[in-house]
Amino acid sequence: MKQYLTVDEWSIIEEGFHPKYNQISESVFSLGNGRMGQRANFEEAFSGETLQGNYVAGVYYPDKTRVGWWKNGYPEYFAKVLNAANWIGIDVKVEGETLDLHKCQVLDFRRELNMREGWLERTYTALLPTGQQVRVKSKRFTSIVDDEVGVIQYSITPINFSGTLTLTPYIDADIKNADSNYNEKFWNEVHQEALATEGYVVAETKKTFFHVCTGQKIVVTQNGQPVEVKAKPTQKAKYIASTFDLAVEQDQETVLYKYAANLSSQNHAKEDLLANTKKVVAAAAQKGFEQMLQQQAQAWAAKWEESDIVIEGDAAAQQGIRFNIFQLNQTYTGEDERLNIGPKGFTGEKYGGTTYWDTEAYCLPFYLATADPQIPRNLLIYRYKHLQKAIENAEKLGFTGGAALYPMVTMNGEECHNEWEITFEEIHRNGAIAHAIHDYIRYTGDDSYLQEYGIEVLVGISRFWAQRVNWSAAKNQYVMLGVTGPNEYENNVNNNWYTSTIATWTLEYTIKALQHVQANWPERYQELVQKLNLQVEKETGQWQHVIDHMYYPEDKELGIFLQQDGFLDKEQTLVKDLPESERPLNQKWSWDRILRSVFIKQADVLQGIYLFEDRYDLDTIRRNYDFYEPRTVHESSLSPCVHSILAAKLGDEERAYEFYLRTARLDLDDYNNDTEDGCHITSMAGTWMSVVQGFGGMRVRDNQLHFNPFIPAGWSSYSFKIRFRGHLLNIKVTKENVQIENQHTNAITLNVFGQPQTIEANAKGEFAHQLV
Amino acid sequence: MKQYLTVDEWSIIEEGFHPKYNQISESVFSLGNGRMGQRANFEEAFSGETLQGNYVAGVYYPDKTRVGWWKNGYPEYFAKVLNAANWIGIDVKVEGETLDLHKCQVLDFRRELNMREGWLERTYTALLPTGQQVRVKSKRFTSIVDDEVGVIQYSITPINFSGTLTLTPYIDADIKNADSNYNEKFWNEVHQEALATEGYVVAETKKTFFHVCTGQKIVVTQNGQPVEVKAKPTQKAKYIASTFDLAVEQDQETVLYKYAANLSSQNHAKEDLLANTKKVVAAAAQKGFEQMLQQQAQAWAAKWEESDIVIEGDAAAQQGIRFNIFQLNQTYTGEDERLNIGPKGFTGEKYGGTTYWDTEAYCLPFYLATADPQIPRNLLIYRYKHLQKAIENAEKLGFTGGAALYPMVTMNGEECHNEWEITFEEIHRNGAIAHAIHDYIRYTGDDSYLQEYGIEVLVGISRFWAQRVNWSAAKNQYVMLGVTGPNEYENNVNNNWYTSTIATWTLEYTIKALQHVQANWPERYQELVQKLNLQVEKETGQWQHVIDHMYYPEDKELGIFLQQDGFLDKEQTLVKDLPESERPLNQKWSWDRILRSVFIKQADVLQGIYLFEDRYDLDTIRRNYDFYEPRTVHESSLSPCVHSILAAKLGDEERAYEFYLRTARLDLDDYNNDTEDGCHITSMAGTWMSVVQGFGGMRVRDNQLHFNPFIPAGWSSYSFKIRFRGHLLNIKVTKENVQIENQHTNAITLNVFGQPQTIEANAKGEFAHQLV
Repeated sequence: MKQYLTVDEWSIIEEGFHPKYNQISESVFSLGNGRMGQRANFEEAFSGETLQGNYVAGVYYPDKTRVGWWKNGYPEYFAKVLNAANWIGIDVKVEGETLDLHKCQVLDFRRELNMREGWLERTYTALLPTGQQVRVKSKRFTSIVDDEVGVIQYSITPINFSGTLTLTPYIDADIKNADSNYNEKFWNEVHQEALATEGYVVAETKKTFFHVCTGQKIVVTQNGQPVEVKAKPTQKAKYIASTFDLAVEQDQETVLYKYAANLSSQNHAKEDLLANTKKVVAAAAQKGFEQMLQQQAQAWAAKWEESDIVIEGDAAAQQGIRFNIFQLNQTYTGEDERLNIGPKGFTGEKYGGTTYWDTEAYCLPFYLATADPQIPRNLLIYRYKHLQKAIENAEKLGFTGGAALYPMVTMNGEECHNEWEITFEEIHRNGAIAHAIHDYIRYTGDDSYLQEYGIEVLVGISRFWAQRVNWSAAKNQYVMLGVTGPNEYENNVNNNWYTSTIATWTLEYTIKALQHVQANWPERYQELVQKLNLQVEKETGQWQHVIDHMYYPEDKELGIFLQQDGFLDKEQTLVKDLPESERPLNQKWSWDRILRSVFIKQADVLQGIYLFEDRYDLDTIRRNYDFYEPRTVHESSLSPCVHSILAAKLGDEERAYEFYLRTARLDLDDYNNDTEDGCHITSMAGTWMSVVQGFGGMRVRDNQLHFNPFIPAGWSSYSFKIRFRGHLLNIKVTKENVQIENQHTNAITLNVFGQPQTIEANAKGEFAHQLV
Repeated sequence: MKQYLTVDEWSIIEEGFHPKYNQISESVFSLGNGRMGQRANFEEAFSGETLQGNYVAGVYYPDKTRVGWWKNGYPEYFAKVLNAANWIGIDVKVEGETLDLHKCQVLDFRRELNMREGWLERTYTALLPTGQQVRVKSKRFTSIVDDEVGVIQYSITPINFSGTLTLTPYIDADIKNADSNYNEKFWNEVHQEALATEGYVVAETKKTFFHVCTGQKIVVTQNGQPVEVKAKPTQKAKYIASTFDLAVEQDQETVLYKYAANLSSQNHAKEDLLANTKKVVAAAAQKGFEQMLQQQAQAWAAKWEESDIVIEGDAAAQQGIRFNIFQLNQTYTGEDERLNIGPKGFTGEKYGGTTYWDTEAYCLPFYLATADPQIPRNLLIYRYKHLQKAIENAEKLGFTGGAALYPMVTMNGEECHNEWEITFEEIHRNGAIAHAIHDYIRYTGDDSYLQEYGIEVLVGISRFWAQRVNWSAAKNQYVMLGVTGPNEYENNVNNNWYTSTIATWTLEYTIKALQHVQANWPERYQELVQKLNLQVEKETGQWQHVIDHMYYPEDKELGIFLQQDGFLDKEQTLVKDLPESERPLNQKWSWDRILRSVFIKQADVLQGIYLFEDRYDLDTIRRNYDFYEPRTVHESSLSPCVHSILAAKLGDEERAYEFYLRTARLDLDDYNNDTEDGCHITSMAGTWMSVVQGFGGMRVRDNQLHFNPFIPAGWSSYSFKIRFRGHLLNIKVTKENVQIENQHTNAITLNVFGQPQTIEANAKGEFAHQLV
């Protein structure tokens, strides 16, 4: 854990320069607008430790797979998040000497990520090796109003000299991915153009042939007045720059405004790309930094209005939850159904691909509750569009007849992962994708989604499950062999309870969904039967047979579901008995020892109980929770939120709060010692879930919202906003009571502490806490 | 399968040039002498498909591990068989045009590997693009008399012209491993010296700092008379050569003799390396090609005298078995206990490392029966010398107190493999190493080996097993979780019957061995107890507890041992139901499908039954064989021999012969489509076992040899020689009877068809076949 950042309710602040944490800061202070984004690299040269990262959403590269030993079925190539052109670069020379904080004495360094308004500011005084002192202030943002634009206000003031500054704002597309498997660069140059104060590079990705045009336009002021600069354009391979000298006087501020844009051929015809980029850059320069900043602040205010969680009495918790919400909103705006939520968002390139089951299992609830329903719907359509690829993926593994296996990790629908125990076996992801359809319809009521898109995905997944099980003559039941469950500290196990449970749930739901479509859209139903070549009776009959004869491991004596066959053969030690020096296990223990041990990386049986809680009575939930929680090491960022929600459900408020804390400040405090690779974007949605579903006890049942809130002991109050079927609610929980404000023009009936309650339009209901 | 080689009882012959099989031929026609060896690359330049391979025994390089996803416990570096200096190279120019068979029309090409005498000859006529025709005959061998020396007789005759030949014999140490993980070269230059007709390169391996001096000395004759050549020495980085022109006349034969040597710092002080190489090269040149060749033929005759198997009536089978025996003798002579038997010998670099469990489980019986007992003893001492590394390896994985886990693959005692399911879990290798001690003592009677070396290894391995099991409260027995058995088409299974069986066998044997040493060498016993810090009562008590309470999976109803927990949950399909188009599974099925299937790569339960056959009655063996054989796909070259031996034991002579055929010509016919990477050296010993233990039914029980032979239907006779405790026996099996010739000066009592028989000194016993 590292706690070098200042606690503040609305901003992330670094006071003083921490070069050894610079890569962590680069992750934490990242900017993004759903369309482009980048790490908090410096504009000027920096020869210290840094991980460069500039990303354009949806632009990927299929890198050649690297493994030690090839297994049949691995993808030969897989899509990788691409490091794109550097648009922030501004080389600065002071009297001919390059400004490089790694070589300067750095004074009064401060950087602030202002989450309320969506900008990053960095200020410092640098003493150069040559003796000159300069004061620098740089402020930048990626606009969520003009989402192809990023702008920088870069100010320099000589402190102890008058002389010459040489500024070289540039665009550099000669960029490498740090995780390039074979040290290749992934970009080719298509075109470039360098004028005095503007310039453009069009680069093309190898193999995928995406074009991205990155452009810049420069405006300079001194003493607040525009100055004409005599800029000299420079061109190199995949690089353009404008270089100019400025005579500066002591204490005189020079400001360079850099208006930059990234336009991708995903959104523009390739032949228009350059012309359109020129227009976008010109329009931004026309609008000007101040106006753009003002619009940015307004747009962010609107986002906060919808999705903020306010915690009173605990500034660190407040900062943590806001950081999570801010990063989620920076990563995914939901406007483009071709995009998804990468595990590192725009904060790093690690893991390859952008889409994991995290999207469905963890992120969807956040967007369902805080965004326009079209946004979660787009997340579902993304998978619908990958259905054909999922079918091909299943075919590669030997499945037939339209069975679909969605990839573990993907960018374009193809598999991006290459560990057999994950790629081939962690198939529960397929269940999460099916369940997301249910979750979406349950929340929004939009059952028409089924006939439009949902059925096709459900049938493909059900066909997969039906082939993936096999009949065990020994057990006289269906079994599911060779899987990896959510707990990745087990590999290639038989009959993982969670996987088998979500498999038969999918089959049940698909049968019901087919019936629902048949009843409500009979023509469309016929069309779908045709299109899917569905042998309705035969196939659903077989599914029903699997549902009726599935084997689930359990221990009747302990009254628990067993994570998998043979789980009780393990040595039953507990996390509390593990010495601190052996944690985290994944850094201290060999892999085989982890696999043999009883220790659980992340919620597995409990994940299933969380998803299907209404199937189980409280005693069953408690027995399972009491058995598995003491064996769980939470070495996945996705784990504590589920435990938090279950603890809350079981009335263990203290543990619920503890688990919340483990995720809320995961990146701010670099809890897992890996934030330098990027922030844990998808698990941030889990933090939100801990508050809303855990502390707030929010559920949707039978088309109604249910709340069952408590307040953590150290907080004065907390509040969150929820959209629900056209309503907008503000739920505030104080020590005294629960206040639910209906900001809609219709009354809403909901359920608080188990009692139905109606809250009139634009009215507030207040409900006393329940005595436990 | 490819059948382009001519069947011949003593030679491997390629008639006509098969450039598309050239890499296969390079493997099959490889030469070696236990100390050095190389693939059958051409002496002259060749721009077609070729895999260069020159190897010096014991010289390795620790390449940086390459994996897709790192798992804790993987070795950072691992030793790799090293491609060393090319000592065979002779560049040939005909009237200034390079002779390169890839660019010539090749007529009358023939190559022969003469196994009886141990040499390789290649003859051809080449029509160069420029119109000249030359006749080339090259003959070479790596001497088993002077084992640091390789010699080449390279003859060229102009057919349709008189003119100039330019010859450039060279040594090139600027060599790359084809499997270099990061495209690095592994050699640095230390020194080089180029004189007119001789030259030397001393190269050093990076990281391991082995020095190897490779030298050459050139003698040229024309019309059988030595000629003085005006050679010009050339030097480049890691390269020396002698270049000279020769005026040649049509039909006049020019012969270049190249006397080369490889001396390694494993056997010479670094400072003496160059001087010693000069001496060795000079001595070879002094002795001359013809005399060396004669000595080579004599030395091979002696080897054949000891280890030949003669098959009458089946030339293909004869060629196959001789090829296997020849390659085994080329690979390992047993004189140096630092060396071992690589899976590819000197025929390729694939797999990294040289030592697998193959050595103990498959190769040891061959050397026990055909070589001086010091040779198998050296194989055991090799592991003794790696004991400390095995203890360190176990410590890395979390084991303590002197527990030893030998690596899956090694060169110097360190692990060379990096798939978790193999590296960390295929631990039965430890059992094979323990069992080899038993096997050696059973065969040789040399029980003193226990007190000298054996006990220490046995205790280390037993300590490992005792920690590797855990008590299952659910079963009230010890279990062994998370292992991979010999059948690598299962990974991370629980309670693999074979592994658990060999584990408790080790514990039993170690307890007995300790008692034996205590009884016979009481002082040494005390010394060992001290040295090993052995808490005799406590530790052996714990081992006994494991022996007494071990869980072994079985199915009482079927009367079989279960390969692992849950094996009967699999879909019970059979190999005969697999379409040919889906074979081999490892090329056609995805890995997960293989793992889930019932199909077995290589003997697993049956491997245990083979090793411990005396524990089981014939019915039990038959039930297990009848259950597992139809599920076994034999996609490991190590599998059919075990099935062959068991089929023979069960009286199924036809299947026993079928299984024999699958290995005997594996490389000659490129059965598995992978001979181009090198030959399957270790499984060649399995072929020998099929004949001797399978057809011959040879066993050692209670200090006596037992034979129970039959003869495959298509053969007229077969015979093999056996050393046993100072005796030399020649066993010949004909259609009529079994003849056992005692070539020793003492009588021997042995057991034929279950009856004790005494054969007098230098006498022959004849025994009628048994009616079945």
